[in-house]
Amino acid sequence: MIVVLTPNPALDVTYRVEQQRVGTTQRVLEVSRRPGGKGVNVARVLDAEGVPTRCVLPLGGTAGTWVREALRDLGMEPATVPLAGETRTTVTVVDDVAHPTMFGEPGPAVTPAEWAAVQDALADALRGASAFVVAGSLPLGSDPGLVGDWVRTARDAGALTVADLSGPALLAAAAAGASVCKPNVEELLGATGAGSEAEGAADLLTRGAGAVVVSRGVHGIAAHTRDGVFEVPAVPGVSGNATGAGDAATAGLVLALTGGSPLPDALRRAAAFGAAAVLRPVAGEIDRAAAARFLDTTGSPA
Amino acid sequence: MIVVLTPNPALDVTYRVEQQRVGTTQRVLEVSRRPGGKGVNVARVLDAEGVPTRCVLPLGGTAGTWVREALRDLGMEPATVPLAGETRTTVTVVDDVAHPTMFGEPGPAVTPAEWAAVQDALADALRGASAFVVAGSLPLGSDPGLVGDWVRTARDAGALTVADLSGPALLAAAAAGASVCKPNVEELLGATGAGSEAEGAADLLTRGAGAVVVSRGVHGIAAHTRDGVFEVPAVPGVSGNATGAGDAATAGLVLALTGGSPLPDALRRAAAFGAAAVLRPVAGEIDRAAAARFLDTTGSPA
Repeated sequence: MIVVLTPNPALDVTYRVEQQRVGTTQRVLEVSRRPGGKGVNVARVLDAEGVPTRCVLPLGGTAGTWVREALRDLGMEPATVPLAGETRTTVTVVDDVAHPTMFGEPGPAVTPAEWAAVQDALADALRGASAFVVAGSLPLGSDPGLVGDWVRTARDAGALTVADLSGPALLAAAAAGASVCKPNVEELLGATGAGSEAEGAADLLTRGAGAVVVSRGVHGIAAHTRDGVFEVPAVPGVSGNATGAGDAATAGLVLALTGGSPLPDALRRAAAFGAAAVLRPVAGEIDRAAAARFLDTTGSPA
Repeated sequence: MIVVLTPNPALDVTYRVEQQRVGTTQRVLEVSRRPGGKGVNVARVLDAEGVPTRCVLPLGGTAGTWVREALRDLGMEPATVPLAGETRTTVTVVDDVAHPTMFGEPGPAVTPAEWAAVQDALADALRGASAFVVAGSLPLGSDPGLVGDWVRTARDAGALTVADLSGPALLAAAAAGASVCKPNVEELLGATGAGSEAEGAADLLTRGAGAVVVSRGVHGIAAHTRDGVFEVPAVPGVSGNATGAGDAATAGLVLALTGGSPLPDALRRAAAFGAAAVLRPVAGEIDRAAAARFLDTTGSPA
């Protein structure tokens, strides 16, 4: 069982319109709604791979109810903690002309008692789990120290722990000894204040991270460890929707690591999953046939 | 009891952002959610006046649940008909710079069986009712002939019937003998194809409407009857948010008519309510003290 905590899940709404224009009334031609948040995307990719996966989600309001029901409809029974506040909605407006416009609600204020309930749900879910993933933003005003508790709980349960976080939350995950911290380059530099990827990764390793896996987009993916750096290139010639590619890479990474793959092979799978996500129009899905093909090409075991 | 049917209710969401810009990620600074649709606005104004009011609403999905719960929280217990489809959401984005941008979802497809259930709920609610208001758009693809059934049901129940509709639905209401058709000038010309307000009103009267009340925005409000035309000016010097002003005017009109006021007095109350709605930042509310003041000024009985 892989347990995935999404501290600030979302109801992701996409509106397609004829042409975006400020100050007008726009008829929405197509609406899609999806359960979102980075952790949810990771979990959906894992679930589609047939891996037993449990989402832990603080959820509130009708948006929260929607997210819970949508995951149930997908056959994923999340462990949910009820919030008094309303789960955030994101609205992304797309057309065939301009870049998408994204409106992101701030998300609910989560009380200490609600965080305590999340901690309890997490400890429950982690019993016997092989891995723990925590991914995405924290709700505004949350104490980054919470992340330390989560990572320690996972470690105590004997689970491999992967943290895809940013800012102080990323630092807290490293300090608590996460097996893998997995920021992208901007997040790594932003959180550590370092001037280079190598320097930032060294910072997280010094704080206590077991490894630092840095996604570099089209420039591939690298793992920094105390023993050195290993890099794999991105799968070439893949274009499409990059949203959720990093989450798919996280899923590939944790899947390979829990399967006993060494870190270089896990990186290849992460790269293959990331590229296979680009081929899908929405986050939280990968083109599985393409992922297998990409793995063959890069020489990783299936 | 005044029964108000909103054929296509909405969950109205407003996002305040720093500055609207296409193609960017925008942090939402403030979120507000309100039950919406023209009929719901009419009903909320009536309810705030202490008039027993019953909303009849086809509602589906989580947006539908939200609308129902929000009306319950306001102390209004709506008669709801469950839909398989999802009630539409509108998202209005505002800042202090540009005009608001409104994204309107198309609304659910309503099946014949669901419309039959609406008809049953309406017949139920109309027992002993003094008035019936039907207001707002029909869901995309709905048969405008439904409006004829609703108006006839209300007439058979002995209720005064007021129709704030547009297009073929407005024509159907007139043909079914609605006591009052209440379009704005654009809706009147659009539905009838007439070249002038007088010609359009004559068309609706010929079809069967008892009276045609035309809201002219800042140019006041007029009632066309077989006996002639009566006009009242708009309340002067009022500026603010015009959204929902027409709905407040409808509420004032029906309130006066059911109270036994003659049409000229009812028009004055409609104008006062419309102006008092402009003073409120959101639809579905009026500044009641201002409404009373405006009525005094224009010489209508309180």
